[in-house]
Amino acid sequence: MAQGLAGVVSVGRLAVIVNTADDFELWGLHISPDLDTVMYTLAGVANPVTGWGVAGDSHATLEALNRYGEDIWFSLGDKDLATHILRTQALGRGESLDQVTNRLAGALGISTTLLPMTNDPVATRIHSGDEILDFQEYFVARRQQDVVDAVSFVGIVEGRPAPGVKDALADATVIVVCPSNPIVSIGPILALPGVCNAIQASDAVKIGVSPIIGGKALKGPADRMLTSLGHEASALGVARIYRDLIDLLVIDEIDRELVEPIRNLGLEVHVSQTVMGDRQDRERFARDLLTAAQRLRSHA
Amino acid sequence: MAQGLAGVVSVGRLAVIVNTADDFELWGLHISPDLDTVMYTLAGVANPVTGWGVAGDSHATLEALNRYGEDIWFSLGDKDLATHILRTQALGRGESLDQVTNRLAGALGISTTLLPMTNDPVATRIHSGDEILDFQEYFVARRQQDVVDAVSFVGIVEGRPAPGVKDALADATVIVVCPSNPIVSIGPILALPGVCNAIQASDAVKIGVSPIIGGKALKGPADRMLTSLGHEASALGVARIYRDLIDLLVIDEIDRELVEPIRNLGLEVHVSQTVMGDRQDRERFARDLLTAAQRLRSHA
Repeated sequence: MAQGLAGVVSVGRLAVIVNTADDFELWGLHISPDLDTVMYTLAGVANPVTGWGVAGDSHATLEALNRYGEDIWFSLGDKDLATHILRTQALGRGESLDQVTNRLAGALGISTTLLPMTNDPVATRIHSGDEILDFQEYFVARRQQDVVDAVSFVGIVEGRPAPGVKDALADATVIVVCPSNPIVSIGPILALPGVCNAIQASDAVKIGVSPIIGGKALKGPADRMLTSLGHEASALGVARIYRDLIDLLVIDEIDRELVEPIRNLGLEVHVSQTVMGDRQDRERFARDLLTAAQRLRSHA
Repeated sequence: MAQGLAGVVSVGRLAVIVNTADDFELWGLHISPDLDTVMYTLAGVANPVTGWGVAGDSHATLEALNRYGEDIWFSLGDKDLATHILRTQALGRGESLDQVTNRLAGALGISTTLLPMTNDPVATRIHSGDEILDFQEYFVARRQQDVVDAVSFVGIVEGRPAPGVKDALADATVIVVCPSNPIVSIGPILALPGVCNAIQASDAVKIGVSPIIGGKALKGPADRMLTSLGHEASALGVARIYRDLIDLLVIDEIDRELVEPIRNLGLEVHVSQTVMGDRQDRERFARDLLTAAQRLRSHA
């Protein structure tokens, strides 16, 4: 979605606010999985097969770590490592996460403003039965097999939006809640004190895109997570979650029968082909979405 | 030399004390070039062409660092990086250099005791004209082209031998000053308070091996460095530096004419083929050296 928008929005007019509650430390390195995925995608170097990591990356360091007896439950490519090394070094000498993110993204030729939601440490925890799991433990090591009974964001109350986040929301003409996991990817951003207020106070047209299509998440555990947390795993369930935040929900053609129920919540609905393929297709969808926003604005 | 000795000395009876004054930080990682070279060599994974780094290593991370605009003046291989990452992580959480060295060497299957000379920070500086260079700046970035007018070891006075260093010297039956640069590789070890005393107090037979053969260093700037610092770039010059420390100097056949002048300093001399080739040849030389030590001990 971010890549599609970057292709159709004027240079300097797109900011992407990214979840950092998945960040964690591994072998002393600060890993920001969501920032990296967005950064690599915008730089055109993302691995198209996995959706994360760098295309064509090798794993010589990881194999050497394994030889040292390390558990290599989390895959780090060799090229990818350069990002973690430089980020860790920068944070260690007092640079903030938004500063180093800006610097690394700039070096990769990205003109889109890439903003971590916060410079403060926030950590998602997955509560499953009696267990409390670190997010990556749940997501990667245990392959999202645990039933999610509750989710918490440690540090969220003390977290402050990173410099630029509130301004980006205030200055926006369109705010898009991208089709990502509403609980653990979008959830932390919205839970950060000040973010919801900034969205509500903004004059922007506010659009959500349902990550649930035909009752399923395209990838990841969002559908099961919604269900186990008492939501409905459908575009309607997503609409209920975002209803106080957005003006318009974009849903897939396959979910056309949900238009009326969603409208009954007081939301506008735009039906589109929301499954994005290659870069061109992502831009096709971004254009369609911005057209819907434009239409809504002119009606308002 | 260390590999040769490791092949012929009983398991548990060889300790190698390694210079750490070349250690430095790069991209936030703690690099210990001499420890790594000895460790990789003893593990049988050293790059035989360069003499440092891991055989067959790739450089994907380094290339990615370069893409981020970093100056890649110091080559770090991908496999090599695993060592630096784990060492840095360990030091960061309070492990000492000797502890992490022991752990990494053990994981690589090394039974020889590998000892950093100290856990304390010591840094070699090269004084050239009005300039004071960090050691790696002189050695790697500027390719040893600067005339060395003086050498200093910052932190040496406060440095304490790492746990095990003094005991290894006290318990040894033979102490070998390996054929390495007497100024910047052996020099810091001997300059560390307590080390010379421990060698002198030890009952071991003390042997030096001249790194200067026919007036030249096999590799590196030792010959030019000796000359510019007022020493003689010859086995005799080496003998003069080590005369108060060792009983016997091993010199190469090519330097046979220096036997008498060295004996006149009060040192025993053993003439051998000191240029070591493959592992077998290294063991051949180690055996020859230990035989000479045995002979000296039985004469004493």
